[in-house]
Amino acid sequence: MEFAHDVIAWKRDGGELDEARMRAFVDGVVSGAVPSYQASALLMAMVLRGLSDGETVSLARAMVDSGKTLDLSVLRRPVLDKHSSGGVGDKVTLVLAPLVAACGAVFGKMSGRGLGHTGGTLDKLESIPGFRVRLPQGDLLRQLERIGVAVVSQSERVVPADRLLYALRDVTGTVECDGLIAASIMAKKVASGTSAVVLDLKVGAGAFMPDLERARELGRLCRLIGEAYERPTTCLFTAMDAPLGRAVGNRLEVEEAWQVLGGGGPADVREVTLALAAELLPLSDLGVTRDEAARRAEAALVDGRAAEHFERWCYVQGGDWRPGAFHRLAGRETLAARDGYVTAVDALAVGRAAQVAGAGRRTVDDSVDTAAGVVLERVVGEAVGAGEPLASVFSRDAARRGEAGAVLETAFTIGDEAPEARPIVLGREE
Amino acid sequence: MEFAHDVIAWKRDGGELDEARMRAFVDGVVSGAVPSYQASALLMAMVLRGLSDGETVSLARAMVDSGKTLDLSVLRRPVLDKHSSGGVGDKVTLVLAPLVAACGAVFGKMSGRGLGHTGGTLDKLESIPGFRVRLPQGDLLRQLERIGVAVVSQSERVVPADRLLYALRDVTGTVECDGLIAASIMAKKVASGTSAVVLDLKVGAGAFMPDLERARELGRLCRLIGEAYERPTTCLFTAMDAPLGRAVGNRLEVEEAWQVLGGGGPADVREVTLALAAELLPLSDLGVTRDEAARRAEAALVDGRAAEHFERWCYVQGGDWRPGAFHRLAGRETLAARDGYVTAVDALAVGRAAQVAGAGRRTVDDSVDTAAGVVLERVVGEAVGAGEPLASVFSRDAARRGEAGAVLETAFTIGDEAPEARPIVLGREE
Repeated sequence: MEFAHDVIAWKRDGGELDEARMRAFVDGVVSGAVPSYQASALLMAMVLRGLSDGETVSLARAMVDSGKTLDLSVLRRPVLDKHSSGGVGDKVTLVLAPLVAACGAVFGKMSGRGLGHTGGTLDKLESIPGFRVRLPQGDLLRQLERIGVAVVSQSERVVPADRLLYALRDVTGTVECDGLIAASIMAKKVASGTSAVVLDLKVGAGAFMPDLERARELGRLCRLIGEAYERPTTCLFTAMDAPLGRAVGNRLEVEEAWQVLGGGGPADVREVTLALAAELLPLSDLGVTRDEAARRAEAALVDGRAAEHFERWCYVQGGDWRPGAFHRLAGRETLAARDGYVTAVDALAVGRAAQVAGAGRRTVDDSVDTAAGVVLERVVGEAVGAGEPLASVFSRDAARRGEAGAVLETAFTIGDEAPEARPIVLGREE
Repeated sequence: MEFAHDVIAWKRDGGELDEARMRAFVDGVVSGAVPSYQASALLMAMVLRGLSDGETVSLARAMVDSGKTLDLSVLRRPVLDKHSSGGVGDKVTLVLAPLVAACGAVFGKMSGRGLGHTGGTLDKLESIPGFRVRLPQGDLLRQLERIGVAVVSQSERVVPADRLLYALRDVTGTVECDGLIAASIMAKKVASGTSAVVLDLKVGAGAFMPDLERARELGRLCRLIGEAYERPTTCLFTAMDAPLGRAVGNRLEVEEAWQVLGGGGPADVREVTLALAAELLPLSDLGVTRDEAARRAEAALVDGRAAEHFERWCYVQGGDWRPGAFHRLAGRETLAARDGYVTAVDALAVGRAAQVAGAGRRTVDDSVDTAAGVVLERVVGEAVGAGEPLASVFSRDAARRGEAGAVLETAFTIGDEAPEARPIVLGREE
């Protein structure tokens, strides 16, 4: 396609693509008129030249228009959503979704599958027997109206360009481009009918963004797209060096989310969830400030309303949620070689161990073992004695327990003194 | 292919590919193990990051090894070749090949087809009725031994990687990379069994290299590959703003080459050819210096030996060469709008006009009209009166003559004073 050649050469030489050219590219990828080898060459030129603000918004618009868009306006209420850039042990959606509903707002999410070392929310929900993530649009609307919360799988007809482009980016080294990432995130939110979004942008060694500056830039681009569509978008930047909480693995994370919903659980999961709720609730029609929102959300965790909304949500989506009904698989402990304080836990290593245990996919066709995963027996700042457990890995397969255990041994750093406490919420932008 | 992904990401981030990785990439392209969308992403990363000297040599080696290599060593004499980076009206090979043979050395060339506004040597030779460019290897060897000159089409089994990569580069905006270009040129020379090469690197508005600096860099990379294979390689840099000579179009160029072979013809064609012969003959086993080589070559043009070798060459390769037997097609003149001196002739415009007339291919499947083309009635520096002819276009099709004539009108610049004479040979490097 000669048009595609000229567009590629233009971008290669540092030119900017206008909206018509960006749209022709995206439409061509979806229709097949632009073959994959031209698409990947252009994607590489985009990665190495970068996308301007205008190009990023144009790309998002073209992606939104590449498929079906959902109209949730019959609800006559804002539908809130949260997007996380991905972290190990990130079970926040499981808490935040019913918490937002318990506070009187509406939370609706269309989610994708997890790949690699970070699990997807759908996999976590499906670890509850019977939980259905595919809902007809009518059911989705009724559920949002009735109980104020729904998390479902993304329809294949919504932003088909994203699936095609992502599959290509994944195998051609062209994932790493802020403009491409922002357009991918926000096009799906816009096309799914979301009214307002909070982005939980993870920063640190366990996230794909190593520093706050890069995360701020991604957040800025996402907010730009949100503005173009008049969908209020705020950003929270949170630390992802160690895993979030103690549990990593689908059902293990649901169990931990349940603790947080009941007012307990790990402090970091609770803090991040409340901070996100404080961002999100003011974007609804409740007329609350961030401070009021934080207070309301905290109260809903303490007085049982959040847990109650979680149970109702599971019930409506078909899930057989029975607290305490989960029995752990056979486990293997990783023991401390010395006395001291845990000064660091490598999130990537823990994620990899959980994947080895059976909790994550290596390819899209893999199935996950919902019960497999890792529980940290010690987290950063805690003391440990030589021979005491640092972590446990749970798997149906003894060889995998051994392999995952070996990975876990590399994950912990133990020092002589307790490390200084580090904040989990690093900043916000709106 | 996960290996390919890692190689792409490494190059994308500015890393250098070692020989094993370069080879795996090239072999993967040939075998199909590396799909085209991964190959094009890597090619774009190469274009934007550039190739190091080491990568360029590694790529050339991998390309040479991707197919069959010809062994011409049974001749026990150096086989010389010339490569031109492509210019409008470049019929130099038609003169140089028999001239080198007339001087007692061996000239053997495997050539590709012309594309776009510059014609290929094979198309020019095939404008002589009966001229065969496909020869079995045994015939090629016997011919080189007997008459010291052969120009044949490149076997498809020689450097198959180049055909595949070039086809991909052509449609993905990844042609423009000195390392890729140098590897493509030199891999074919090495695999064809060439002993020594002179490169005629064209510089100017009518060449793909706009400035001498860029041409020097390409020449340096080619010489580096030549050194790695112990194939002496020298570079001549020649001007390509206006077309070379007066004729543009396959058979028209053969006619002009015949004039130069007889000691006449345009001065620029003669000068470039003699300069290339002076580079090439010292690389044979004649024990001549460049000055001696230039004198010998000039003598062979004047005393009829070069023309005689051309006739013998045509005869042996089956061509029915009869001087004066060519009749021009119907022509259309482009006239000067004013009195003055021709100060510039735009080579690209003339090339395009010849292509419109039927002399060139737009796609690989097009056939060429061997008789079609353009003859410049005035060249740079010559005076012209208003209403006098500047150029003639020859085509079987009146509409094409009109279209080509309109293009030619834009090609000439006429000023009040004769322009300063500019050198055609801009420099050399060995």
